[in-house]
Amino acid sequence: MITTDICIIGAGPVGLFAVFEAGLLKMRCHLVDALPQVGGQLSEIYPQKPIYDIPGYPEIKAQELVDNLMDQIKPFKPTFSLGERIDHLSKQEDGSYTLTTNDKTQIHAQVVVIAGGLGCFEPRKPVLENLETFEGKGVAYMVKNPEQFRDKKVILAGGGDSALDWAIYLSDVAKRVTLVHRNETFRGAPDSAAKVFDLANQGKIDLILSANLKELGGNGHLASVFLEDKAKTKIKIDTDYLIPLFGLSPKLGPIADWGLTVDRNAIEVDTRDYSTGVERIYAIGDINTYPGKLKLILCGFHEAAIMMQSAFKYVYPDQKLSFKYTTVNGVNSF
Amino acid sequence: MITTDICIIGAGPVGLFAVFEAGLLKMRCHLVDALPQVGGQLSEIYPQKPIYDIPGYPEIKAQELVDNLMDQIKPFKPTFSLGERIDHLSKQEDGSYTLTTNDKTQIHAQVVVIAGGLGCFEPRKPVLENLETFEGKGVAYMVKNPEQFRDKKVILAGGGDSALDWAIYLSDVAKRVTLVHRNETFRGAPDSAAKVFDLANQGKIDLILSANLKELGGNGHLASVFLEDKAKTKIKIDTDYLIPLFGLSPKLGPIADWGLTVDRNAIEVDTRDYSTGVERIYAIGDINTYPGKLKLILCGFHEAAIMMQSAFKYVYPDQKLSFKYTTVNGVNSF
Repeated sequence: MITTDICIIGAGPVGLFAVFEAGLLKMRCHLVDALPQVGGQLSEIYPQKPIYDIPGYPEIKAQELVDNLMDQIKPFKPTFSLGERIDHLSKQEDGSYTLTTNDKTQIHAQVVVIAGGLGCFEPRKPVLENLETFEGKGVAYMVKNPEQFRDKKVILAGGGDSALDWAIYLSDVAKRVTLVHRNETFRGAPDSAAKVFDLANQGKIDLILSANLKELGGNGHLASVFLEDKAKTKIKIDTDYLIPLFGLSPKLGPIADWGLTVDRNAIEVDTRDYSTGVERIYAIGDINTYPGKLKLILCGFHEAAIMMQSAFKYVYPDQKLSFKYTTVNGVNSF
Repeated sequence: MITTDICIIGAGPVGLFAVFEAGLLKMRCHLVDALPQVGGQLSEIYPQKPIYDIPGYPEIKAQELVDNLMDQIKPFKPTFSLGERIDHLSKQEDGSYTLTTNDKTQIHAQVVVIAGGLGCFEPRKPVLENLETFEGKGVAYMVKNPEQFRDKKVILAGGGDSALDWAIYLSDVAKRVTLVHRNETFRGAPDSAAKVFDLANQGKIDLILSANLKELGGNGHLASVFLEDKAKTKIKIDTDYLIPLFGLSPKLGPIADWGLTVDRNAIEVDTRDYSTGVERIYAIGDINTYPGKLKLILCGFHEAAIMMQSAFKYVYPDQKLSFKYTTVNGVNSF
């Protein structure tokens, strides 16, 4: 049994920064994340992508932000259960919680913080007969390391920003990029779409519109993809990789059964302290919702700071909280 | 007449970051600040002090944060009226505002954002007959550059965190540090107070408790300070500098007359968009208050992001706001 003050579900940027705000109030944290590493979407989906809207960073790579946050919380010695998912939550007589993961890890905490981002999300997959056979063998649902595709033949599928962005990016890296989309127009940003049409005119991208993925071919590893166009003509394209970018499908998973008020895959919270309707359970970051909510990392940071002030009373019921600036005393590690 | 979309009163860290959030929505900003430089308290009071609670920065000097924010907003070409204070605000027929500074600069804006920090604050001064004579000639109310005091004799007065922190810091820099406090105990953090007593025992600080400042001496420049102790004994101390650190006295100034709801020198706002009760006027950062408010820079950043989404409708009444992540398109400069 792991014993901690605060159990944080989700080790993305907001869950990580919550450790810092807890630590300033001398509260210890244990974090659980279904992903095998910290950083959430930043590390899993776009580690090499620059972010521009973190205050004080004109530009920072997603993974660098995660690394800096890990440095920042080091004094507070957080502990982690990575690659695990919370399956059960049970309330104790004294109001505290015991949480159990799918690996049977048990965590006892005074307070539970859900910082689950888009929830236990999963990529939306195309409906193709032998899709699973080629997963990890030519079929990928995200670009983690663009260098993997250097001098390879790549088919991207989709019409949103991810498909457009990666088509543009990989046109400089891959041997050949083919972008397949079922419509004639793109859902993504107009200037990205314009750039893709430009690159297609210059012959740097093969653009196939009004076409659908139909079949995969290959022996052990993906070797070709069959499309069907508007006129129902079947087209065969030789390729090393197929990357369907149809977005993520957010799922709250077992959290949805805990009696929280959920509105469209997000947990409703009170903006005074980001508490849920269930005592001692808070929700911060992209997984919560309230009037005016913006799904920005910087907003999750704010929510973490406010939330920990409120959680203090459950961890130290006999103490009065005194608010202090770090400029005065610095950070006192555990 | 300066014409802009948004007039931001206060060019501290929160006012500066607000320019970024406005810029992402293609709104231009003009900033007014009573101080002669941007950065607010960070640049004015503690430019060389490290801050530890900016998310993603385990440690950053206050001035460095300001410099980075200036870099971050550069693409959006903000304009500034520094060293000026807003004196008048007049509502136009179409709902927009015209603001006038004490230097008669006029600014026309669709939206006004008050990011005034502690307001137009001023240091609390001791009551001493010839105090003004020595201001800037030995008497200072803040430590802007500690090197100014290297190998000098310095008297600090006060019992809060500033007095303790600077006594500790300057004990390594100045020729001699004397800390004068009217009580026997300190208001500041217990561990800082313990450190000061330690340094006094080691002879590295002269500590004079239960004593008050009475008189200043010197010919053109401060040369001595007269104290009076508990027993009404007069003590003369030769010195190069006297730094009374009695805190800041926040004043909302003319803003207090604009019909806003003010509670203890802070403006009450609606947390859905940080609007005040007066249409088209918002308040963000340390100058606002709401249930659960924390006076942290990172909270002001969040408030700026949310607030600009709401202001958009006044600047572009005919357009629908579409929310976009900077990871997708980067930052498109003006």
